[in-house]
Amino acid sequence: MNAKAIAVDTLETPLQRNLSKLVALSEQDAQFLNDLYSRRKTYPKRYELVLEGDTEQRGFVLWNGWACTYKMLLDGARQIVDVRIPGDFIGLRGLLLQASDHSCIAETPVEISEFSWDELLATFRRAPRFATSVLWVAARDEAILVEHLVDIGRRDTLSRTAHFMLELGERLQSVRLGSHVGFECPLPQSLFADALGMSAIHMNRCLRILRERGLMTFQNNQVTFDDRPGLAELAGFDASYMNRRPPTSRSAIAREV
Amino acid sequence: MNAKAIAVDTLETPLQRNLSKLVALSEQDAQFLNDLYSRRKTYPKRYELVLEGDTEQRGFVLWNGWACTYKMLLDGARQIVDVRIPGDFIGLRGLLLQASDHSCIAETPVEISEFSWDELLATFRRAPRFATSVLWVAARDEAILVEHLVDIGRRDTLSRTAHFMLELGERLQSVRLGSHVGFECPLPQSLFADALGMSAIHMNRCLRILRERGLMTFQNNQVTFDDRPGLAELAGFDASYMNRRPPTSRSAIAREV
Repeated sequence: MNAKAIAVDTLETPLQRNLSKLVALSEQDAQFLNDLYSRRKTYPKRYELVLEGDTEQRGFVLWNGWACTYKMLLDGARQIVDVRIPGDFIGLRGLLLQASDHSCIAETPVEISEFSWDELLATFRRAPRFATSVLWVAARDEAILVEHLVDIGRRDTLSRTAHFMLELGERLQSVRLGSHVGFECPLPQSLFADALGMSAIHMNRCLRILRERGLMTFQNNQVTFDDRPGLAELAGFDASYMNRRPPTSRSAIAREV
Repeated sequence: MNAKAIAVDTLETPLQRNLSKLVALSEQDAQFLNDLYSRRKTYPKRYELVLEGDTEQRGFVLWNGWACTYKMLLDGARQIVDVRIPGDFIGLRGLLLQASDHSCIAETPVEISEFSWDELLATFRRAPRFATSVLWVAARDEAILVEHLVDIGRRDTLSRTAHFMLELGERLQSVRLGSHVGFECPLPQSLFADALGMSAIHMNRCLRILRERGLMTFQNNQVTFDDRPGLAELAGFDASYMNRRPPTSRSAIAREV
């Protein structure tokens, strides 16, 4: 495969779509992404990518498949921290701490590339514009975490289910893996229960009510927004927290590059 | 005031305590902290430091006093995202997004310094070791957010109250504003209810039960851990997610500086 062909591959990856929303990436940035992409590996469903307490200080890019990050409690309860879809980083926070504060498991077969802390820093020094993009993605991920907190802290179970599904739909749409009317979803209902602090039975009941009200359907691995405006109203969903642009256009870094 | 005197002041601030846990800061780093410290301003209780949607891309260092970040829902419910204590940054995430995804209000009179995105980036370029410290603090804050998510998602109301109080105590102790047996707390009970997804009445009941069991007391603005091991056991509290060291010792940045 020649360099040009690789570049085309990478341009079409979800990570490139996420990052290039922000700034036109340089050739150097594209090279780093190409390098990462070319050394991707495949792992089976249920493979544990990260275990809480891991001290290896490595991160991953998820190219294909779905994963979720979670924490286990002493009593065996599980809290899903977030769902990772193609184009997402895994373990950025763990790179900075001495050990990972969460676990991450593949929910489908996945294609991922691993990178080290040193490698990321070296890239940041070579390509500060790329660094800004990565930091922006990290900030967006944290904004999603904050909304997740609001979901389970202050939204009733119907609204929080609607909000979480709309958010996931928006994220998938932005990497062209979903559309305005829905997305294919390989995750079981029980995982959404663990994400939203509900029992599996309660989650099942919520999904039934949403379907009966004509708002959304989750069946046969397919989420369909039957009435997206109505669903968004119920959820109080406003996607702006995910779509905010970074300040690169007027930042010192942008001027410098 | 001569340079030496300022340096001593800064060394004694909670921010310095937080950052210098990681690496011995350089003179340049100290200079930036001194500059920040010397331009601090005082604001009254209830002052809105940040409003959701603010586009000013500025951050703050909190030198004195307490603040909290929150999101309001359309129905008027409030979710406290986190409590900010002396030595904490405010608005780091908003610096990277185009607008703040949350609001922040002073819960007591506060002393803060404001800085811009450009200023932070300029400092990062001059002092990469300082940048690593700031990023580590941001990662620690995000780890606290993840625990907060677990609190309200999967811990029962007694455990989550105990966990949140122990965490706050640990954070205060690390900037020498609390001890192993407790801390002075200017926040009202209702704020903890809004942080933990509970009603004020339910929070009051939880605190009564914890007191009656001899585990902790929250009275007259004072939190006392009457039986810290018992409280930690109830909460499943393990402070390691806050105390993990950054990988500076073996990072490219550390070698470079």
